Formats: sequence, structure tokens, C-alpha cells
Amino acid sequence: MDNSLIAVASTCRHHAQNLATLTTEDKNKAINAIAQALELAKAEIIAANGIDCQNAVIAGIPKPLYNRLKLDEAKLNDAIAGVRDVAKLSDPVGAISIHRQLDDNLILKRVTCPLGVLGVIFEARPDAAIQISTLAIKSGNGVILKCGQEAINSCQAILSAIHTGLAQTNISPEVVQLLTTREETLELLKLDRYVDLIIPRGSNSFVRFVQNNTHIPVLGHAEGICHLYVDKAADVAKAVTIAIDAKTQYPAACNAIETLLVHSDIAAEFLPVVAKALQQRFVELRGDERTCKVIDVAKANDIDWETEYSDLVLSIKIVDSLPDAISHINYYGSGHTDAIATEDSTTANIFLSQVNSAGVYHNCSTRFADGFRYGFGAEVGISTQKLPPRGPVGLEGLVTYKYQLVGNGQIAATYTGIDAKAFKHRDLD
Amino acid sequence: MDNSLIAVASTCRHHAQNLATLTTEDKNKAINAIAQALELAKAEIIAANGIDCQNAVIAGIPKPLYNRLKLDEAKLNDAIAGVRDVAKLSDPVGAISIHRQLDDNLILKRVTCPLGVLGVIFEARPDAAIQISTLAIKSGNGVILKCGQEAINSCQAILSAIHTGLAQTNISPEVVQLLTTREETLELLKLDRYVDLIIPRGSNSFVRFVQNNTHIPVLGHAEGICHLYVDKAADVAKAVTIAIDAKTQYPAACNAIETLLVHSDIAAEFLPVVAKALQQRFVELRGDERTCKVIDVAKANDIDWETEYSDLVLSIKIVDSLPDAISHINYYGSGHTDAIATEDSTTANIFLSQVNSAGVYHNCSTRFADGFRYGFGAEVGISTQKLPPRGPVGLEGLVTYKYQLVGNGQIAATYTGIDAKAFKHRDLD
Repeated sequence: MDNSLIAVASTCRHHAQNLATLTTEDKNKAINAIAQALELAKAEIIAANGIDCQNAVIAGIPKPLYNRLKLDEAKLNDAIAGVRDVAKLSDPVGAISIHRQLDDNLILKRVTCPLGVLGVIFEARPDAAIQISTLAIKSGNGVILKCGQEAINSCQAILSAIHTGLAQTNISPEVVQLLTTREETLELLKLDRYVDLIIPRGSNSFVRFVQNNTHIPVLGHAEGICHLYVDKAADVAKAVTIAIDAKTQYPAACNAIETLLVHSDIAAEFLPVVAKALQQRFVELRGDERTCKVIDVAKANDIDWETEYSDLVLSIKIVDSLPDAISHINYYGSGHTDAIATEDSTTANIFLSQVNSAGVYHNCSTRFADGFRYGFGAEVGISTQKLPPRGPVGLEGLVTYKYQLVGNGQIAATYTGIDAKAFKHRDLD
Repeated sequence: MDNSLIAVASTCRHHAQNLATLTTEDKNKAINAIAQALELAKAEIIAANGIDCQNAVIAGIPKPLYNRLKLDEAKLNDAIAGVRDVAKLSDPVGAISIHRQLDDNLILKRVTCPLGVLGVIFEARPDAAIQISTLAIKSGNGVILKCGQEAINSCQAILSAIHTGLAQTNISPEVVQLLTTREETLELLKLDRYVDLIIPRGSNSFVRFVQNNTHIPVLGHAEGICHLYVDKAADVAKAVTIAIDAKTQYPAACNAIETLLVHSDIAAEFLPVVAKALQQRFVELRGDERTCKVIDVAKANDIDWETEYSDLVLSIKIVDSLPDAISHINYYGSGHTDAIATEDSTTANIFLSQVNSAGVYHNCSTRFADGFRYGFGAEVGISTQKLPPRGPVGLEGLVTYKYQLVGNGQIAATYTGIDAKAFKHRDLD
């Protein structure tokens, strides 16, 4: 284990402890101080980013990565505006979900509290450092950022501004730490004792690597294999509109659909219409054997059902029943978001109950699966695990809860045995 | 991978899918049918348990294990009464935590839903099979039980009764499955695709083994290293009472304290009194160097601070400040339950905020950390992980949530770009 990294993590953890006792006002002041410091450091940040971009050109990094790396003034202004928006969000810490009198003067509260320290690993995007540091402070957490090698100068300039901002507040700058070497990623994943949540931002394979190489909980999803099931009672026009949006509005998104399931009773009517509309939008279609008998498309193989194309490709399968559709989704899906198009509400309700995904939709596009669209104000990530937090995760995903029990000398023996006193268990408020 | 086990798990999962759509009434009927079937099968169950007990005597299993294995009529009656109590608990499925209008006729709900399939691994106690099967059905989950070899006849008789009960209801008996061989434990831990939550019930080392050998989430805790910190502003009489209860009321419990931290300003007054009271109750005391100067006790070493004695042994350490106490607890504790005795509410609040444990208590015994005492009606386990569910976990810990979005053909494109329509984000109800 790398001792210098343990020192960084333990310093972060130590100072973060204080964050748990701060008021919302203190945290918001700190967030606004960060915004101001970033404003003042704009020239330095853009200059540092210039060096990163120059190095990236020399290294010949792919164009999409370069675009994510490039931080011009407009993008930086957006990021700073985003910081001020976080100050306006409601505080996720201190929410009381249980408030119960166990007995006279023995009061139980379940209260949200910070997790402690977040470990965030991201690739090129330097503006991610700005966003996640602010969300960490709002939720009362320390954060260890690990940026990609290609964004090192940008991130160092950003961190320097964040530290300058925090130095004027009640919050120690040590609560935001930056790591820059690739070796540190692996070491960070081992720090169970110091880091409470890992947030990986990168490719599917990178997220899967992180999930398989740490005992720390991971907030993220490796895959988004989403489905639209067009039921026999679907409104064809609606189903076509939804299919087009869910596939083409932003095909690289994790909430875009990869597979269209079509009830056999409606296939002859629906498939030619949807195929034409999708092909006009340059979507490559791959169908199972039965689909190929209705429309002239390439043949899908078994790999297609488990592939996230992230591109203008769509696989199509004909199913004979709602249970067959549900079975296909629960087997091949990634538990992200799956939709049904139907005018039959009984069918819709069975689908919504039995599909085991974080998002289950009726008559709307899977593309709505997003923290901002859900009204969370911020999105920390989308989780496809079964346990909460699940689906699009807002600030709420950066906190946990604890049970606070306040008494006046009460002991368990009083409530045990033959003369046991009974608990009152009366919910308050 | 063991194919017969995959068949068991996939059958369980398949039939459990149906549970997600059942009404509370249907589930309660099934639970009462199980209670009745167990009543009718009492003689068979007790006879089967007699065989297990006889084998246990021949095998020479330890007395405490034998006591847990032994199922007499009183214990069985209690277990059946427990089943009927579960029918009376409120249904954890279908609770709505977000209900929001995203736009006209586009309604988002976050609704609790079953996890799918639980894997429960327990040692000798056959009554655990009764309790957990009932809790699984109430929460809409299938369950794969893996009982200890020593309880095999008892568990088979219990399962047979449960299946008889379920056969008269809307719920397939296949939702409750029993495994009996040791090899199947390891195989069960590998079934990520079929099992959503593992609940290990057994020794600390067994729980740790399970945690280290599966990618499935685990509900449980390997250790309960709980502390009582006696602050300089403590009421000595109260602190002594709490210390005695927290250590001696049931020393084998995970919520009993293992270490007493005492502020140096109160040590000379408090330690002699508490030591006398504890020693009268046969508690062996081990103190750090400074403690040994105040009272005549054995010397504690570094191992003591990280040991769960589960016995009448208590380590004692003098600290000079609240932060020192908090640091000790956050470093050596297991995040289970920790208490402060103080009459100073500012000090208490800092302790409650900064101690990173599932339970943080002020002026009461750590022994209250229990699902029944919290008023949950049932306790599935106690979790010391950071993320929810944390602390004592009731039925709520057996469900997750999903996002249901119901529209009328809405697509994301409408809310994107230059002419983007704004979301309403209006909370309903």
C-alpha cells in the first residue's frame, strides 16, 4: 500500500469530519467562494488547459476525447454557473426519515449524514473536477479526485482555485484532494478504510474494471442495454415516435434503446412503419428470424441481444406474449431503463411491476432517465445495481443515514424480562 | 458452476417475479396459510428435530450450538406466532417516495419493490428458516435457504410444511427453496445473476468469509466493537448505569460495548466507581497505562482496542478530549453503535455528528440497537456498512425501489434544444 496516498486519504478524511457539523449556510458560502475563486482564476485555468490541449494534439488523442478535454471560456462559465446552482439546491444532509419516541425522553431519529470521503475517477473532462468538488461539499463529503493524465494541468489549476476559495471559509482546503498518476487509481480502489464511495466516470469497460477491483461501493453503471416493448395493444403512431426518440435522439447515451421487442400480433402492422422511419434516420436494423420475414433487414445473432451499440444500430425481436417480453428484458437487459408502448393499462402495470429495472416506463421515451429530467437539480451518476441508490442519482446518493438515540440514562434491562417496561413506539411530528 | 443449483435459483427467480404483482392481502393470506400448515405439522417438525438433536449429540457438537438447534414445542409455538405477527406488519412494497409531475400527463413515481431473490445462509437454528421465509414473502421476494448440515431434518420438515401452506394460495411453493450441502454455500455466493441479496447468519468469521467471497450485496455485520465515551461533563451515576447495562446485560450481543473511553478530567472520580460496579458483575477489566494508575486492573494492549470480546471483558482508555474519543472510535470501532455520556448538549451533538457509526447514542445504553426496540416489528439483520440500509434493518431492508414513468407518447426531443419545452417538476400529493 502506498503510504503517501494513505496520508492524502487520511488527511482528507480527518478534515472532512468537520463538514458533517457545518450548517447549510456555511456550505453554501464555501460553494459561492469557490465560484468566485474560479472566476478570478479563469485566465490561469484556460492557459493550463491550453497546455493540456497542446500535449493532447502532440500525443494524437482521439477527437471526442480532445473535445471533452478542451475547456474554453464558454464551457468554464457554464461550469461556474453550475457551481452557483449547487448552492441553491436543498441540503441533502439532516433530513429526518424516522422520528420516534421509544419511551419518555428516549427519542430515536434517523437522519441523513455525509458518507465521509468520495473517490472520483474521471478521464479527460476537467470541468468534472469543478462539478464533483462542489457536490461533495454540498453533501458534506471530502473528495479525492483522480483525473486522467491528459487533463493534469487543467485540473491542477482548477484545484488551486478551489483551494483558494475554500481558504476563505470554515472549510479546510484539504477536503478536496487531487491525484494524477495512473498507479494511484489502483491504490485508491484499495483504500476501504478511508474512502466510502467510488464514482467512476469513463467508458463501460473502465467502470466494469473499477467494479471488479474494489470492495468499496461503486456508484455507476457499466452498461445501458435498454428496451422498448411494443405490445399488441400499442398505438402504432405513439410507438414509432417513442422508438425514434429512444434510438436516435442521442444514440451514445446509456438510456438509448438497443433492442426493440414487438408483439407478434402487431408486427406486420408496426414493423414496416418503424423500419422506414428509423432507416430514414440512418439506423441500421438487425432482426431475429421472424422479423426478417416481415421486413428486409440484416439478421441479428445472440450477441446482439446483449450488446450496447451506443450507435445508430437497433436489434429487433418478435415475441408472442408480455411474459416473453419481460423474460427477455430481465435476462438480457442491464437493469437500466425499459419501456412499454401499450394502450392497455393492465398490461402496462404488469410490465411496470415485473421488469426488474431501475426505470420502467409506459408510453414514453427511455431517454427521460436522467437526474435533471427527473428534477433532481444535479446528477451524480446512474446506478443499475438493485439496492438503492438506483437509477439516476442526485445529491441524495452522496449521503447515508445514521440512527441517533437520545436518552436520559435509559438502559435495555428496564425493557427486558418479567417486569419489562413496554416501549411506546410513537411516531413524532 | 453447479447446473442443478442454477436450475433451483432460476426456478425461484421465475416464480418470485409473480410476487411483485400480488396485493398485501394475498401475501398476508399466504403467510397465515404457512402458520396454519406449521401448526398442523408440529409433530413431524419436532420429530425431525429430534433426529437432528440425536445426531448432534453423537457428533458431540458444542452446547450453545445444540441449544440453538433444539426446537421444542414452546420454541416452535413462538416461531409460529412470529409468522402471524409478520402478517400484521405493514407492507414494505409499494411505498411511494417521489411522486412528481414532469409535465402534463408525464408522471414520475419512485416506488418500493421487491429485490427479487434472497439467499439466506444460517447455521443450526431451524426456526430461522420459518422467520426468514415469512419475511421474504411479505416483502415479495423469493428465498433460497441454506441451512447447516446439523439442522437438515428439521429444515426439510419445516420447508415441507411451508410448501403445503403455499400450495393453497396464489403463491408458488417454488419461491421458497432449501439447499443443504456445504458446497452449495460457495456456489450460492457466485449466483450474481439470480440472487440479489445474501443474508448470512452465523459467527463473525463466517460473515466476513461471505463478505469476502461474493459480488452479491451482503446484509450483515462481521463485528460489533461498540464504545461508551464518558465525557468530562458526564453524570457519573448515569454513566455507571449505562456502562453496566451496555457491558453486562447480554455480553455476547453485537451491541454490547467492548471499550470504555473516559475523559481524563473525570477519570479519578468515575473509574473507581464503575470498576467496582463492573467487577461485582464479574467483568474483567483491562486498562491503558493511565487507567492502570487510577485503578488496579490488568494492562490492555493494542489488540484490545480492536477486539470484540463477546464476553464479560472490557477495555478502558483515558482520553484528553472529545476529538480524541471520536478519533479512537472512528479508527477502532466497527461502525455499529457508540454512545456518549454527557450533560453537555454541545459536546453530545458533536459526538452524534462526527462519530461515523450506524447508531450514535447520547445518555443511553448501546443495547437499544435492535430492530424490535426501534419499533420495526422485525429485524432482518444489523448492517455496519456505510450505505443504506444501515443499522438494524427491518422489512424495509428487503426491498429496493424503481422509477415508474407513465406518459402519453412523450419524447425527450421535445425538451431539448432551442425550442425546448420546460419541465414542470411539480411534486404531487
